[in-house]
Amino acid sequence: MIRKHIVLVADLAGTVVFAIEGATTAIHAGLDLLGVLVLSFIVALGGGIVRDLLLGDTPPSAMRDWRYPVLAFVAGLVTFVWHAQVEALPALLLSTLDAAGLALFAVAGAEKALEFGIHPFMATLLGAITGCGGGVVRDMLLSRIPMVLVADIYASAALLGAAVLVVARRLGCPPAVAATLGGVVCFALRVAAVRFGWQLPKIA
Amino acid sequence: MIRKHIVLVADLAGTVVFAIEGATTAIHAGLDLLGVLVLSFIVALGGGIVRDLLLGDTPPSAMRDWRYPVLAFVAGLVTFVWHAQVEALPALLLSTLDAAGLALFAVAGAEKALEFGIHPFMATLLGAITGCGGGVVRDMLLSRIPMVLVADIYASAALLGAAVLVVARRLGCPPAVAATLGGVVCFALRVAAVRFGWQLPKIA
Amino acid sequence: MIRKHIVLVADLAGTVVFAIEGATTAIHAGLDLLGVLVLSFIVALGGGIVRDLLLGDTPPSAMRDWRYPVLAFVAGLVTFVWHAQVEALPALLLSTLDAAGLALFAVAGAEKALEFGIHPFMATLLGAITGCGGGVVRDMLLSRIPMVLVADIYASAALLGAAVLVVARRLGCPPAVAATLGGVVCFALRVAAVRFGWQLPKIA
Repeated sequence: MIRKHIVLVADLAGTVVFAIEGATTAIHAGLDLLGVLVLSFIVALGGGIVRDLLLGDTPPSAMRDWRYPVLAFVAGLVTFVWHAQVEALPALLLSTLDAAGLALFAVAGAEKALEFGIHPFMATLLGAITGCGGGVVRDMLLSRIPMVLVADIYASAALLGAAVLVVARRLGCPPAVAATLGGVVCFALRVAAVRFGWQLPKIA
Repeated sequence: MIRKHIVLVADLAGTVVFAIEGATTAIHAGLDLLGVLVLSFIVALGGGIVRDLLLGDTPPSAMRDWRYPVLAFVAGLVTFVWHAQVEALPALLLSTLDAAGLALFAVAGAEKALEFGIHPFMATLLGAITGCGGGVVRDMLLSRIPMVLVADIYASAALLGAAVLVVARRLGCPPAVAATLGGVVCFALRVAAVRFGWQLPKIA
Repeated sequence: MIRKHIVLVADLAGTVVFAIEGATTAIHAGLDLLGVLVLSFIVALGGGIVRDLLLGDTPPSAMRDWRYPVLAFVAGLVTFVWHAQVEALPALLLSTLDAAGLALFAVAGAEKALEFGIHPFMATLLGAITGCGGGVVRDMLLSRIPMVLVADIYASAALLGAAVLVVARRLGCPPAVAATLGGVVCFALRVAAVRFGWQLPKIA
């Protein structure tokens, strides 16, 4: 019972953090109020929607539970109205919350894919898509090459976290233990990568 | 019987207008004949296809009824061959027809979502997606930030029209009355926004 | 039995060629290792995934058979590690293999759509989408107008090949004969277009 509440709170918190990030990116890109709300929605829920379309679980869960879209829009609206205050939040706080959201979405996405009987290898990919998909669609809408494809240990952290969950589940761990393990690994790798400036190799 | 014919004619007219717009945009962007036909198809039918993918109603209705894609391609081909004449059409005529197409697609999309048992809040969003989705995919293909996110009262008019339909249906109005109400509100707001240059707020 | 093996080998070969192309494009665009792997996956399997989403055949077949994604990733990784050697391959070899991959994907996509009971006109479009969709998503990710919309006889070759298959099937040809006819026509038109620099008409 308490565990259920923890998961729900974590899920809602991840949605809010991602929606705030979508809104601030939209404001910097010169979008109007509608554009800000759309990007809040896309960054917060786009990854899960892409995952559900690929799984064939339609309508996507973000569209069946009205609380998620409403929360994303409210977070976007608040960011629009109090943007000066939101911009003043410490970068470290935001990047830490973002790493938490990424970890949460990646393990939740991989777990859902496993429950749908998807092969472990593809379930790992779907976990990373759940974590990073919203940001990729955001960058495509803003006519930019998606950040995750160019630099940073971001999708890689999501992949590793999802892989840990998938392996732990195959070894017989209960879902909560596997999710915690995968989430901690993803979070730790992402935070360390930001802290130490780790990058993936690139040619020339 | 007569009503059915009116809806069909309106639906086909909306498809033609949106296809012509897709074709003229493609010609200005320097696409070749195939690119012009693809954009005609996308602008005319893309919004409905995205809606149907999200609803899980596959194959999308635009792919089950061959008349819609054929009509979109013919409109695109005619625009390509007689582009000088199409360009000479008065802008006011085109923007009025476009507002009519937007209104029609928005209320049709919201009504279909309600029939699929979608929550009224999400049904309103799906109405707006049906009206604006084709233009968003067009802009993504042309590597531009989608117009509807940056300026103009366009998606907002679609949202309002869809919301009016959804509320009217909840209050017990028959579909035709609710659709007419929603469509008139969307059309009037869009035409007024073009006429008076209304914009949504934007930050700096 | 032998025929089955030929189809499988051809399918895997097409996947490898498209994955190599995705990887080289990604390297030239300055993506990191993860971006290179993502583009290998998208170019090799994106067209089939879009087709399956539109057909409602989810999860897409590229996600049910783990051999395809693994093959795409391995091809991308090999291209990343030995990029100098891959770049040194003769352009004619690559464009010929690419034409073969296009032909194969176009006829396979159209045949699958027919088996799903799709109208012949839309089945032809789905064949072309299967052949070209991966490249279109690649260009959208790289924030470029998709090549196939701007220049070259590429999507047109896929459309013609798919159309030949569809017509041959309607005339009663067995699948293998229809696929061979369609594939040869697509391949020959594409190779000839590259050789002679054929282009579709464009306005101004």
